[in-house]
Amino acid sequence: MISVVILGAGNVATHLFKAFNKADNVIVNQWFNRKLKSIDYYKNIVEVTDDLSSLKEADVYIIAVSDDAVAKLSSQLPFENKLVVHTSGSVGLYDLDKKLHRGVFYPLQTFSKEAEVNFSNVPICIETLNKAHYDILKDLAKAIGSTSYKVNSDQRSALHLAAVFVNNFTNQLYRIAHEITESTGTEFDILKPLILETANKVQTISPYMAQTGPAIRNDKKTIKQHLKKLENSPHKPIYEQLTASIQKTHGGKKL
Amino acid sequence: MISVVILGAGNVATHLFKAFNKADNVIVNQWFNRKLKSIDYYKNIVEVTDDLSSLKEADVYIIAVSDDAVAKLSSQLPFENKLVVHTSGSVGLYDLDKKLHRGVFYPLQTFSKEAEVNFSNVPICIETLNKAHYDILKDLAKAIGSTSYKVNSDQRSALHLAAVFVNNFTNQLYRIAHEITESTGTEFDILKPLILETANKVQTISPYMAQTGPAIRNDKKTIKQHLKKLENSPHKPIYEQLTASIQKTHGGKKL
Repeated sequence: MISVVILGAGNVATHLFKAFNKADNVIVNQWFNRKLKSIDYYKNIVEVTDDLSSLKEADVYIIAVSDDAVAKLSSQLPFENKLVVHTSGSVGLYDLDKKLHRGVFYPLQTFSKEAEVNFSNVPICIETLNKAHYDILKDLAKAIGSTSYKVNSDQRSALHLAAVFVNNFTNQLYRIAHEITESTGTEFDILKPLILETANKVQTISPYMAQTGPAIRNDKKTIKQHLKKLENSPHKPIYEQLTASIQKTHGGKKL
Repeated sequence: MISVVILGAGNVATHLFKAFNKADNVIVNQWFNRKLKSIDYYKNIVEVTDDLSSLKEADVYIIAVSDDAVAKLSSQLPFENKLVVHTSGSVGLYDLDKKLHRGVFYPLQTFSKEAEVNFSNVPICIETLNKAHYDILKDLAKAIGSTSYKVNSDQRSALHLAAVFVNNFTNQLYRIAHEITESTGTEFDILKPLILETANKVQTISPYMAQTGPAIRNDKKTIKQHLKKLENSPHKPIYEQLTASIQKTHGGKKL
């Protein structure tokens, strides 16, 4: 049995609480948040507090607050030499106060407030300074059904950057496609199966092997048609740059 | 019962043949290709030919050849006033020879040679010059389980352009993420659940509502960290441009 205390009340904190609460081998001893109101709803199933000085004992303290607030909160903890982890992709391990046993428990996934999270689809990136702490966090990830990966700070920051490309930037390409379809009165819905299939494809083959389309074929006629359609559009430079990027990846063809 | 003749032997032609061959209400009267060898494998289940002058009767002739070859092949057909469609997103309806009843039957999906295609995940965009032809093509799409959409030329070309964004360009973002993770010796696999979830999210909420991350939050510290990591990388301008695009979409914040 692994005991935890959760600090914070955002999406990650809330989804972790629910997963820990359901897991057989985990007990949430306490949930802390500065504003008690945000977690008040859960007070019948877990002890809630807004008072750092009354924090209970636990194997792991999980700080799931905004990136900017991690360092300060860790320095305010009224104890030392206990395992304290944050859940951020971009905050350093050493931003946690050095009086603590420091670690990172970074779930690499996008969370919404509403949707239920199945942690078997949430890889957890673990970073610690020693093996014993790593083993505890690995067991904790396993208890909620997650696959865990041992990553160092450099790898974690690369993963966080890569996640911006496959999540935020990809979503913006969806948005641009939405604008393009809307501008001619047609339905974004028509693109949804293609969006899913594109994501499905790279689950089993590499993005390098999965590439198709006018850029990789150097189909100048179609590229010219597309650029003409994008004349005076803010999306034109994005089209040009990503076409050039594909051609550079696949052998240096030029626009 | 709708009878068809297929012309061409690429991915689209082959997947359409398999789907028609399985469908209850469709019969493939013949399959034409210039090189008989490419379709020889199927000769026991369908009549194959390399001779245009011996084409059989059918309700619909489906030209599924490369974009550049559509117009010429249509002009060589030894008959007139029959329904002939092409399957391309970017070829005009009027590129088909005017002696024919012209139409478009454009499956908006990415096909690989190997993977089986479930046509219930393949929207078909239909364009015709009259209602009777539209009804035949709609029934044909329905017979293989596809949802069909009536689109005009302008809408079809917008969909083709939008498909480049959500398929080819998105796949290139996956590729960039692959390079970023590999450069620090970590696994692209860790990103796969996030890739799927990002695609899943926009099945039910709009890309506009689904956006998260440092760009939309205008989290200058993280953006600066990311740009520093991309110093001297060809991916840096793509990061800058897509970050600016997100900020423009969501209220004009500046990098």
